[in-house]
Order: sequence, then C-alpha cells, then structure tokens
Amino acid sequence: MQNPRYGIIGTGALGGYYGAKLAHAGCDVHFLMRSDLEAVRRDGLTVRSVKDGDIHLARVNAYGSPEEIGPCDIVLIALKTTSNAALPALIPPLLGPETALVTLQNGLGNEELLASRFGARRVMGGLCFVCLNRTAPGVVEHYGHGTLSIGEFKGPPQDRTMRLVADFQRAGVDARAVQSLITERWRKLVWNIPFNGLGIAAGANVVEVLNDEHLQAEARALMAEVITAAASMGYAIRPDFIDHLIERSWPMGEYRSSSQVDFEAGREVEVESIWGEALRQARGAGAGTPRLELLYALLRRLAGKRGG
Amino acid sequence: MQNPRYGIIGTGALGGYYGAKLAHAGCDVHFLMRSDLEAVRRDGLTVRSVKDGDIHLARVNAYGSPEEIGPCDIVLIALKTTSNAALPALIPPLLGPETALVTLQNGLGNEELLASRFGARRVMGGLCFVCLNRTAPGVVEHYGHGTLSIGEFKGPPQDRTMRLVADFQRAGVDARAVQSLITERWRKLVWNIPFNGLGIAAGANVVEVLNDEHLQAEARALMAEVITAAASMGYAIRPDFIDHLIERSWPMGEYRSSSQVDFEAGREVEVESIWGEALRQARGAGAGTPRLELLYALLRRLAGKRGG
Repeated sequence: MQNPRYGIIGTGALGGYYGAKLAHAGCDVHFLMRSDLEAVRRDGLTVRSVKDGDIHLARVNAYGSPEEIGPCDIVLIALKTTSNAALPALIPPLLGPETALVTLQNGLGNEELLASRFGARRVMGGLCFVCLNRTAPGVVEHYGHGTLSIGEFKGPPQDRTMRLVADFQRAGVDARAVQSLITERWRKLVWNIPFNGLGIAAGANVVEVLNDEHLQAEARALMAEVITAAASMGYAIRPDFIDHLIERSWPMGEYRSSSQVDFEAGREVEVESIWGEALRQARGAGAGTPRLELLYALLRRLAGKRGG
Repeated sequence: MQNPRYGIIGTGALGGYYGAKLAHAGCDVHFLMRSDLEAVRRDGLTVRSVKDGDIHLARVNAYGSPEEIGPCDIVLIALKTTSNAALPALIPPLLGPETALVTLQNGLGNEELLASRFGARRVMGGLCFVCLNRTAPGVVEHYGHGTLSIGEFKGPPQDRTMRLVADFQRAGVDARAVQSLITERWRKLVWNIPFNGLGIAAGANVVEVLNDEHLQAEARALMAEVITAAASMGYAIRPDFIDHLIERSWPMGEYRSSSQVDFEAGREVEVESIWGEALRQARGAGAGTPRLELLYALLRRLAGKRGG
C-alpha cells in the first residue's frame, strides 16, 4: 500500500500525539474520539512541544463512531486499558481483509485480547516512551522523548512492521522495530511494576524510592521477580538489567509514573494490564512472585477505593 | 512479699487501666506519668466500663519522675514502643535487687531490650487482649475483654509469675500464666502482622480484608510467613492456626486495629516492634519472608510520612 489509511482509537494524549505527527507528515489519518470530538472539529488538533516545535492541524478527520471511518489499513489503539471492554465493538467496522491492529497500550494482555477476537495474524504492538499530557480538548502537551518500539505479536518484524516504522520516522518519531515485542513488554514491566506500584502504595516518587534503603531493596526484589516470571515464559532478560535500570532511574528525580499521577488525581489506574496480567501469566508458568502478589492485592484495593 | 510495691511506667490507656484495677483491689500502685499528671493529682483516675462497672480512684500515687517513686517490686511497662528509647533512663531509679520488669507492650524485642540493659533474670512480659481508649487526661474507657497472658522471658512460670497472675485475678482481670511467653508473642503477631499491616497499607478494616479475595489470600500468606519464621526460631505454631484466626476474625466486623487507628489519626505507629523486629529475627534465622519485607518497607514509609 502506497499511502495506508490509518485509524486511531482513543484520541487522548497518546493517540492525539502520534496521530497528529503522522497526519502532519502527510499520512491519511482518521481519529475516533468521544469527549474531544466537538472541540477538535471546531478548533483542530494541537501538539505543543518545546523540543520539537508546535503542530496545529486545522482540519482533522475526526469521527464519533467507527462506522463513519470504515475499513483502515492500520488501526492504532491508544485507549486506556481500563476501557478495553469497548474494543470488541469499536474495531469490527475498521477491519478490511489485511487490516493490522497495533496496540500502543500499556502492559500485558492487550495483544492477546486482540488476537483472541480478531486473529493473531493481524496483531502488532508498540511500546511508547513519551511524556505527554492532554491539557485541554484537542490540545496535547509534549514534554520529551517520543521513542516508539514496534513489533509483531508473533514473530520477528515483517515488511508491514518496517513500513510502519518508516512512516513514523518520516513523521519525526524516533521509531524502531523490535525482534520480540513481548520480551520488550516484559522489559518495560521490570521498571513499571516496582516504580509505578510503589509510587501508589508507598506514595513515593522515583527518587524517594531510590533514597529509601528498604523501598529500593523491594524495587530490586520486585524486578527480580518480574525477570524470573519472564524467563519462565521464555522471555530472557539478563539479571544485570536491574542495576542498569536503577542507575537510569536516578536522573529521573522526582518523576511520578503515569499510574501514580492517575491515582493521585482520582483517575482509573491500569492495575490489570500492568500488575494483574503479569501476575496471572507468572502463575500460569509456575513462577513464584510473592511480592507482586501482595502489591497487586494492595493496588486493586487502593485503586478500587479511589474510584474509577 | 506480702503486698508488693507496683510501679507503672506509661500511664496511657493500658497502664491506667491495669494500674487502676490493681489499686482498686488494694495493691500498692505508683504511677509514673507525664501529660496526665496534673489532671490525675487533681481529679484522680477513672476507668469507665459498661461491662465491669466504673472505677474511680480519688487519691492516686502519681509522680512525674521515677526518682520520686523509688524501688519497686514489680514494674509494669506500658509505654508505646515508639518511646522505648526513654526506658534506660526511666527504669534504674525503680530497681531494687529483686525487682521484676514486666513489659505489657506490643510486638517483639521489648523483653530483649530490657534483658540487655537490666539482665534477663528480671524480665517478664504480658500480652494484653483488651479494648481501651484514653478519652481525657486520667480517664480510660474500657470496651471489652481485659485478658492478660503473663509469662517469664526465659523459661516456664515461676512463683513470682503465679503471684502476679493472682494479684491481677483478685483485681478482676482475666489473667493467666503462659508456658512460653515468646511463642505467645509470635502467635499474636500471626494476626497483627497481616491485619494491622493491611489495615494501614490497604486502608481496609478486618471485614474488608476478609471480603476481598486477594487481600484475604495475602493475609493468609503473611500468616504462613510468620509461622515459618517463628518455627525457624524454635517457636512451634500449628499451620491450622491460620484457619482458626480467619474464622475468629469474621465476627470482628469493621474493627480497625490499634495500629490502623493510630495511623489514621496521625499518631505514631509501632512499626518496628510489630513488623521490623519480626522481620529482623526471621532474617537472622534464615527464614524467607518476602511479603513481610515488602509490607514493612511500605509501612515504614507510610508511617514516616504521616508524622510521628
């Protein structure tokens, strides 16, 4: 396909940002949105970025239902995982015979959910390392990064993987293809499970976890549990990755993970896709993860109490 | 000794209650107090109890320093463990050659602290199962129970153990002697470590822990860790004690542990004597207690943030 037709499900900060980048670079992008629809139709879509310069799209293909969009070549899924129950109804109108479904969502289980409904062959995923905030309807603030690791759910990169990477690169996104998407997802969880989790359960930002001898030891122990769980499922991560991540965390200072920010703002937390699914898969593979179990039970309760 | 001279260190709810019961029964009791001293000298000491009837002591031997009290036969220690650092200075003026030191405090390590300073031979302990609240200076509200298990720090009950039990029984307290005080302390921790801990970390009262399938599973797993730790130190607790405690917890309903009440009121939490010391002793004995480790790290942080 020369100029693939893109559909974006979930135009919050993430979908708005990557979609706007692609559209700004000339791609044919169609946005499915709910709360921001009216504002975007009236005022367009704006990405503010001190680092990369601002983007303003005055005319946006914005829709309130997937039926209005119709079949796409590539569907980027940027919904919060707490809304995953909506996907089975949202996706079918966007499907053609070769449509690829690319989940940009957090954690584990999203590829599996799509595969179980629409076939594993369609499914791809992306890991987003980007700092964004939706500051108003149709307005996304970009603070840094934008790195995007794209891979196939099953197997190594294909032609379509490389074409998607190339589109993102033309759009100014630092994209790359990864050999094993699910290994990368587990690698991301090695950091997210302790730091997002202790962020909520202990009310501690990154440097507070690092500076507390006991919390840092627990973060390392949780990392080791995640690496053991990943290994038991066939995803090899070297143990010295723990030291590497701790070293890389110090410069983050008072950074609060998106889960902690969501929690403290009273918004839904992606407890199942980050902790719950990792725990269930670890259990299924017979890996012992006692700290993850306790942390998950606490987060379920804390996030459930907080609302959502 | 016909009529032993009692000293009470720490006249909060616990020291006020047991001291008033003994004094009311005719024992020679001398109270060391700080914040309540003036009120008690003026108005006396009152225990209100729907169950047992009220006690009012109009004239109380109340003192502001241990030097004014001088040597006692039995010193009951009812300070909160977070004030244990004051004990080495408070106790010496109360010591005669045969003075027994009886800690009524929570958790582990209190007997050891006293033994290291004043010799193991002097040390006894009591486990208090009683619901109290100090509602005003010199006024203690008694809600229920009052059971007191008394034992020697080292070895089985002696004559002095039985005499102390007899004094409490004459005072209307349901006291009994225990064969192994430290085994009893571990048995109490089998309940306190999960329920007091999850109470704080998950913000859940007893029935909320029980009704949450994941939290109840974690409570049981924490209980199993504590039983394993106790066993590795030579204190045998049967595994079916877990089912027994869970069964006994249901009727407690919305009960919040004293630690949770302290935490939610912004007061100091006895993190070290309940979780920290159990963890250190378990580690010393080579027992793996991963959940206790994580819970302790969270509670240290949460209680430290909260103040105290």
